[in-house]
This record gives sequence, structure tokens and C-alpha cells, in this order.
Amino acid sequence: MVKNEAVVVLSGGMDSTTLLYYAIKKHDVVYAISFDYGQKHKRELELAKLTCKKLNIDHEIFDLTILNKLAPSALTRDNIDVPEGHYEAENMKQTVVPNRNMVLVSLAASYAMGIEAQYLYYGAHAGDHAIYPDCRKEFAEKLRDVIKIADWTEVELLFPFIDIDKGDIVIEGIKLGVDYSLTHTCYKGNIKACGKCGSCQERLEAFEKAGIKDPIEYEV
Amino acid sequence: MVKNEAVVVLSGGMDSTTLLYYAIKKHDVVYAISFDYGQKHKRELELAKLTCKKLNIDHEIFDLTILNKLAPSALTRDNIDVPEGHYEAENMKQTVVPNRNMVLVSLAASYAMGIEAQYLYYGAHAGDHAIYPDCRKEFAEKLRDVIKIADWTEVELLFPFIDIDKGDIVIEGIKLGVDYSLTHTCYKGNIKACGKCGSCQERLEAFEKAGIKDPIEYEV
Repeated sequence: MVKNEAVVVLSGGMDSTTLLYYAIKKHDVVYAISFDYGQKHKRELELAKLTCKKLNIDHEIFDLTILNKLAPSALTRDNIDVPEGHYEAENMKQTVVPNRNMVLVSLAASYAMGIEAQYLYYGAHAGDHAIYPDCRKEFAEKLRDVIKIADWTEVELLFPFIDIDKGDIVIEGIKLGVDYSLTHTCYKGNIKACGKCGSCQERLEAFEKAGIKDPIEYEV
Repeated sequence: MVKNEAVVVLSGGMDSTTLLYYAIKKHDVVYAISFDYGQKHKRELELAKLTCKKLNIDHEIFDLTILNKLAPSALTRDNIDVPEGHYEAENMKQTVVPNRNMVLVSLAASYAMGIEAQYLYYGAHAGDHAIYPDCRKEFAEKLRDVIKIADWTEVELLFPFIDIDKGDIVIEGIKLGVDYSLTHTCYKGNIKACGKCGSCQERLEAFEKAGIKDPIEYEV
């Protein structure tokens, strides 16, 4: 193992939590950072903290409520309800926070450059849907290219799940020993997941594909 | 003139203020946004506001003090002094806020996508020095490429000053009628510019090249 340091953008969802376990296997020192951008499902941040405590990983949560002020989304605004139904539904477009991933990754890159970490992990995966243009492989690659030359430290952006879907991530995560009871997915943000929003449906399908029971509680 | 809208990232410095006047000539509607990232030279934000008032342009200042918490720099931290001397000096590296431009442009892109503006202006220019890797043309081009595919709205990043230096910007600005008395450049942030920091020296050289007297006051 090469002596090196990595930063993981940790939302507290299942993808980035699996990514954290993955990075820990690969690097000597791993730092996790999370962002509070006013998301209704703030519970994910509490779970991110619990995961890092369990794994003894340095973790910081940064206030990014500026993102809520900059651009409207059903994920952050009280006057827009989180829609139910599958991701393909037209109204799921309301859950797009414009350019969210670029903003989060840019800030995380700033952090990585500041502490001179060589690697930065970001949990984009192949299962992310067409409504989220900033989850595509092409986007991740161009983001990597610009980060590489943004600073002399040459931080490298890594997105190892870009070609696999959420079901495959669970399969990988089980091998890595991920505790999925400490992850949150539901956009509504209650302690029990709603089981109805696009995000819940995708999670349930992922566990079904992996042939494993999801350890979290659902309302229905 | 095509009916279109543009957003300008306005620091309140001479480059981005010239850029604002430039964009106003090209577009029907122009919005300016500024960021308070804890810079000591906060006076630039007050002047940005005055310029927008004078030009009757919508202007918003967003709190981005998160950047100060994420990464250290002499421009933001009270315990690091702003160095004097020319940009080439080794200690000017302390003024680098890691990845600052990518963070600012990413957030501005989020804003532009939210209001469905087609264009986003960013004031990088050829005179920016080797200590700022995120001012290079190659960086601006890669940033443009990733923003283009970050959202279905396809915001286009424009950086019309990338091939000219600060002296040429002043020459252009005079033609556009820019009021340079409403711009701030000194990193120290006092009302009278210090005339000694790298930023002041560069400004003075630019006005000298343009053959125009700088309308702001200097301590020396």
C-alpha cells in the first residue's frame, strides 16, 4: 500500500458510505467531509457522523446553506413538496439541485488541496438517473480533468462506482462490511423511510438485487 | 442582439467590473453575483454594490465563509499577514485560496442554471500569475466544458479577457466607460490602497500601460 491520503465526500447515503469503507481499504489516512445544504433529509448527516465515529475517521460537516439560497429545489425548499413515484416521473425533476455535485466536489477539492491530500472520492454511480446530468460518467471525467489542473497539488478525483449500479454497490458494500443501518436514503428525512419516493424505491430495488434485507425501518 | 440573459461573477475588482460593463453591452439582461468568502479586502464587495446601483443591475452577495473554514490563506486568515512585494515572490503563494475560482464559478453556475440564464461570465485574464493555477486558459476551458454538461440548461461559461492582460483590460474598460474609482484591488482592504502588495503593484502597472491615471487613492 502506497503512503497516501484521501478525502471522501460523505453524504450519509448508501453510496458514499460504501465509498468510505472502500477508500479506507486503499489509503493510509482517510478524511470524510459532509455538507449541510439545507436538505430536508438532514438525518443523513447524523448517520454520516455515526459511521465516522464507528470507523474512527476524522469527519467535518460544513454549512452550505448558500446552495439553498442560490437555486431552488424540492430537496431544500419548504414550499416545494418532495414528489412521490419513480425517478422517471416528470415531477422528480423538482428534486434536482442545479449543479449540486460540482459545487460539493469543488469545495471538497479545496479542502483536499488545503490539507495536501492526493485523492478525492465522489460517489457517482451508473444507476443515477437521467434527471441528474451531473451524475453521468462524462461529467465525472470532465470534473476530474479540471480539478487536476486547479492547483499545483494535483488532487486526483476518483469515482470507482461510476460503472456499477446501486445493487452492485450493496454487493460490494457487504464484502467491505458496511453497516447499512447507519445510512439514510429517503428524501423526506423522517426516521422511518417513506418507501414511496424515488430515492426509497431505488434503495429497495438495490437490496432486492443484492438479495439482502435492508436493515432500516420503513413506514409501510 | 439576441434575446438572452447573463450572470457575471463580480468581485468588485477592476477585471470583473470591466467584465460587467462588457456583458451589459452584449446581453438584454445581466445579473451580478458576489461572494463574501471572508476576504480581508471586503471593501471590494461594497464597491461591487455601488457599481451595480450605478448601472441599475440586479446584484446579490452570497455568504461563502465556508471557504475560509475549508482551506487556509493569507487573504482570509487573521493569523497570516498579507505579504508585500511582487507576485513572483515565494511568499505570495500564501495568498492562494485553494480552488477558489472553481468554487465561485460552480456556485455562480448553480445560480445561472436556477434562473435559466444562458451565459456566465468569469474574469480570468492572461496577466494572472503562475501562482494562481486556476487563472490559466487551460483551466478556464476545462471549467467551461464541465459546466456545459452539468445541467440540461447548458450554461455557457465565457471568459473574454483570457488572452489579454490587466493593462489591456483598462484600455477596454475606458472605451466601455468603466468607473474605476468604484473598484478595489489592494489585498489589505483599507480605504486607501497600500501600493505595496503584489495586487496593488499589478494595478499600478496596468494603469501605466494604459497611459491613464488610476482614480483611486494610495497611502504612498
